[in-house]
Amino acid sequence: MTHLTEGDLEDLAFGAAVLGTGGGGDPYIGRLLAQQAIADHGPVELVGLDEVGDDALVLPVAMMGAPTVMVEKIPGRDDLQTVVRMVEARLGRKATHLVPIEAGGINSLIPVAAAAQMGLPLVDADGMGRAFPELQMVMPTMGGIAATPMALADDKGNSAVLDTVDNVWTERLARTITIEMGCSSVLSNYPLEGRQARQHLVAGSLSLCRKIGAEVREARQRHHDPVDAALHVITGTRLFTGKVVDVSRRTSGGFARGSATLTGTGLDEGSTLELQFQNEHLVATVDGAVRAVVPDLICLFDAESAAPITTEGLRYGLRVVASAAPCDPRWKSPDGLALVGPPAFGLDVEHRPIASTAEVT
Amino acid sequence: MTHLTEGDLEDLAFGAAVLGTGGGGDPYIGRLLAQQAIADHGPVELVGLDEVGDDALVLPVAMMGAPTVMVEKIPGRDDLQTVVRMVEARLGRKATHLVPIEAGGINSLIPVAAAAQMGLPLVDADGMGRAFPELQMVMPTMGGIAATPMALADDKGNSAVLDTVDNVWTERLARTITIEMGCSSVLSNYPLEGRQARQHLVAGSLSLCRKIGAEVREARQRHHDPVDAALHVITGTRLFTGKVVDVSRRTSGGFARGSATLTGTGLDEGSTLELQFQNEHLVATVDGAVRAVVPDLICLFDAESAAPITTEGLRYGLRVVASAAPCDPRWKSPDGLALVGPPAFGLDVEHRPIASTAEVT
Repeated sequence: MTHLTEGDLEDLAFGAAVLGTGGGGDPYIGRLLAQQAIADHGPVELVGLDEVGDDALVLPVAMMGAPTVMVEKIPGRDDLQTVVRMVEARLGRKATHLVPIEAGGINSLIPVAAAAQMGLPLVDADGMGRAFPELQMVMPTMGGIAATPMALADDKGNSAVLDTVDNVWTERLARTITIEMGCSSVLSNYPLEGRQARQHLVAGSLSLCRKIGAEVREARQRHHDPVDAALHVITGTRLFTGKVVDVSRRTSGGFARGSATLTGTGLDEGSTLELQFQNEHLVATVDGAVRAVVPDLICLFDAESAAPITTEGLRYGLRVVASAAPCDPRWKSPDGLALVGPPAFGLDVEHRPIASTAEVT
Repeated sequence: MTHLTEGDLEDLAFGAAVLGTGGGGDPYIGRLLAQQAIADHGPVELVGLDEVGDDALVLPVAMMGAPTVMVEKIPGRDDLQTVVRMVEARLGRKATHLVPIEAGGINSLIPVAAAAQMGLPLVDADGMGRAFPELQMVMPTMGGIAATPMALADDKGNSAVLDTVDNVWTERLARTITIEMGCSSVLSNYPLEGRQARQHLVAGSLSLCRKIGAEVREARQRHHDPVDAALHVITGTRLFTGKVVDVSRRTSGGFARGSATLTGTGLDEGSTLELQFQNEHLVATVDGAVRAVVPDLICLFDAESAAPITTEGLRYGLRVVASAAPCDPRWKSPDGLALVGPPAFGLDVEHRPIASTAEVT
């Protein structure tokens, strides 16, 4: 039986920040919450996706909102339990497991905190294999699974239980409520039977996060390149090395949207990288050529420390390594691309495989 | 035992349009719905407020949204029952009675339809004694009664159950959800114990609506002035007779907001009436002097037919009689004025009693 202990959280949070692809909220806040919960209630049992039984009821728990706001609103001790209890009450059935709905950002850590607080096992899986900004952008949607009944709550004590005709409506209503709640809420949605969980989640994402963190930590200790160590775990490719020279960021429609421009340094001297994001990085364009595009992962690392950089952490002068890694292959299916490909973000860019510098030049 | 029959609905709808003070949605739609429901299920038992027992659970049912949109979206046959059932499910208890939350507009008729459909008695009362545009603007709020659990649903099949920390938050969340649902929803909120209903509702408002309609109908038959007949029932005062020369109307924040200008005819020749509204009429100003202001009722009648005019029915060239009538005296208390007085609508006007033309000149 595997457990997540306080000692795992630093690695887990590091990996979650990498898979967060700039979004998902800074995992640091989630890590603090998980740390406190484990200190209070003991380690969290981590269950492999294939070990989840047919009679299981697996509930995701997460935060929703603009990462720029979420990082300033730590959920209260009972808020996570509240939304889980609300879904349980609607279903007339207790959750047997919790699970992250995203593999990246704060939402990889929030379920760890909830699982510790509630004494429930956590499934080593997630609904995306990365982070995406909208509720319907999960594998269960492709599997025809409803996001509702969904519970959401704010830090003031307001809450709502939604039932919707499809998962895009869930996103619309939950987003508008979250905006009114102050651009940040906690939620539980996509209640999954054991069989549905096994079929429609991405296995091993918490272990993957922890492994990314562990490999980077060991690389640092051995004075190896920590970015290379991270990219090795996620089979990623370096796209660009440069300096942030412009960031345009706005919180609109409940999202952190914007773009950034980087000028190349070293081998990329004279080149320009353009990034577009909606909570997460969506497109990386070098000198006008698309090098990586959603649903593939675009990850930025601090060139000095190898720390993953969130879109809200982007600032003038920062020296970064931009990289890309392939997403779960199910996202490359026609249904997958319809749900999370470039047009789903209003982008007029065709999806194409990640192009490393070597392949393009 | 009193019953509401199909034969009562014309009078009831007429009176509801008068007490709607320009807002609350055109009762015509509600009347059609009530007519169909009574034709299908039989008359509705009307219960006096003082006859409601301590063990009663009284549920209001209503529509929410911009009247301009609500008049185009008739709730489906099951929508009203759905929201009542949702609140019942949350409370673990069946409703014994339904009640209107507003005395004016479509929301006086919607509960008649629901009561017929569900075979429940209807309480002869409401939460305002008129119509107001926002959810928290009801007597139960003054009595410290929570608007939640509240259920709301749209015509597509989406629904939400809300729990909020106060009734202003209920309004905020329900409004934003209603806007996202397309500016129109059906709802049930303010679940009331029998004792709470008796203490915090306005008694006799359905009878009052019916009486207004009946007196106007009889006045017409006798070739008496129908406007005078209506004003006699509501102890109203004529403010102005004139012609609509300008209407500015917009749907913003989920409300129908705007203003209208009328030039006087007859005795009011040379004078100008300015009206401001947010779903309902809020202020009537004649030649710069405030003649009537919320929470008192400002009612417009067609000068020819005596038909009450809703704000969405205001149009250039219409000849109208503008009048005012006193609201329930509880609204004139400091708490009442704080909740529904001019500042509650962002108006920099002091509340003052209704000033008839005679008193001012």
